[in-house]
Amino acid sequence: MLIESLHNEKIKNLTRLISDNRFRKKSGIFAVEGKQENERAAKFGFQPQDFFICESIFDEDFPKGKINLVSEKIYEKLAYRGTSEGIIGVYKTRNQDLNGFVPKENSSLIVVESVEKPGNLGAILRSCEAFGIDALVITDARADFYNPNVIRSSVGCLFGMNLFQSDNVELAEFLEKNRFNIFTTLMDESSEDLYKKDLTGKSALLFGTEHSGLSDFWTGKGKNTLIPMAGSIDSLNLSNAVAISCYEILRQKLQKKT
Amino acid sequence: MLIESLHNEKIKNLTRLISDNRFRKKSGIFAVEGKQENERAAKFGFQPQDFFICESIFDEDFPKGKINLVSEKIYEKLAYRGTSEGIIGVYKTRNQDLNGFVPKENSSLIVVESVEKPGNLGAILRSCEAFGIDALVITDARADFYNPNVIRSSVGCLFGMNLFQSDNVELAEFLEKNRFNIFTTLMDESSEDLYKKDLTGKSALLFGTEHSGLSDFWTGKGKNTLIPMAGSIDSLNLSNAVAISCYEILRQKLQKKT
Repeated sequence: MLIESLHNEKIKNLTRLISDNRFRKKSGIFAVEGKQENERAAKFGFQPQDFFICESIFDEDFPKGKINLVSEKIYEKLAYRGTSEGIIGVYKTRNQDLNGFVPKENSSLIVVESVEKPGNLGAILRSCEAFGIDALVITDARADFYNPNVIRSSVGCLFGMNLFQSDNVELAEFLEKNRFNIFTTLMDESSEDLYKKDLTGKSALLFGTEHSGLSDFWTGKGKNTLIPMAGSIDSLNLSNAVAISCYEILRQKLQKKT
Repeated sequence: MLIESLHNEKIKNLTRLISDNRFRKKSGIFAVEGKQENERAAKFGFQPQDFFICESIFDEDFPKGKINLVSEKIYEKLAYRGTSEGIIGVYKTRNQDLNGFVPKENSSLIVVESVEKPGNLGAILRSCEAFGIDALVITDARADFYNPNVIRSSVGCLFGMNLFQSDNVELAEFLEKNRFNIFTTLMDESSEDLYKKDLTGKSALLFGTEHSGLSDFWTGKGKNTLIPMAGSIDSLNLSNAVAISCYEILRQKLQKKT
């Protein structure tokens, strides 16, 4: 059966899932648009509930699962980009427990506090994945991993990652228990350049918001680190600061090997 | 005199300047919103034509120049953010000629080909400034430096920089004449990790578009370089790739000093 009406119950539900963050969180399911994104969700074991496919756009074999065919008109209303390959999947969210994560001796962790913009979180996910960061923790977050904009700007790479939502107290206990070296981006006279720190061991790098920086909670809990700069502008955008730090971690690990 | 009508000729002109790229290019003037941004424009010698100030929002001494007072209602229509500090300045654009640029022995140059999104260009400008890159060249660009979104996302840092619009042929001649080491982000089996290259001399790093990479024009014209990665995602977003490269240049220069 081809769904051609926006008033169809399933379509109404899907529309809400895409546009309404609270509804998504409450229902414990989320929508994934695009071929690569759905392939990655399946590859990493996410359970599909439903697929919405527009046959005139989607040019591959159907995935395993419950298929709902939708008209082109409906698909274009649902999709954020008309050219997005004709497939939207709906999956159960997965809440990973930080205390279930067993770090390795050289595990690298990125922590971002109070991240607000989904686009920023998505870009951060992409950097963490690209540079082989072992886990990303967000604390006191106002954006969540399953927001459609996060999935989009992470190009679907979030599915294979260790991702945790936590709070500062739980995280501090976890880092202490697991003997992480903690590097904080609080600035004071003790701050040292990032590349002078040994980041090849079990290390956690913490970032605050672009606007107000890392919260006072972390004062005295780690070594103050900064990305060296040489211009008249004294700040970087958050996504760039995280990308540079992820790169620096990998660079040190690779150079240590050789 | 307080301007209270959107039909005022000056306001109509300013609106076009903000929203119409072609009109801006043709008229050779551009608009700058915000206190810090206008201060930087003045500091680096841009010639103001006009200021549009909303007295109830702007809380500083008036800058030198022709002041037009506008009502809060008009200001809110003009500004991209209501809270943008009550000042919009209009300045003459400045076209810098690449061949007038005299590089130093350790000058670092960033080149971005065919950049399209103003937000990306703004973020790139910010990274170049923050890490002390000597000049940014854009070739075959579809975005220009004076686009309001570029100024905004660069947080006004573009005013103090060496910025050039060029084309690949002119740029290649310039780089050869000035004996730059050219590092290209074309990928092949000869590609070497960025951190293994000596970037402390006179060097130019070239980036293509996120979508299709650097154009074939540059094949064989430089050393192929890549940012090492360790995940399943094999690309970075352009702004992050440039930020990482700018950081790596500065890191090498700082480490060489010590």
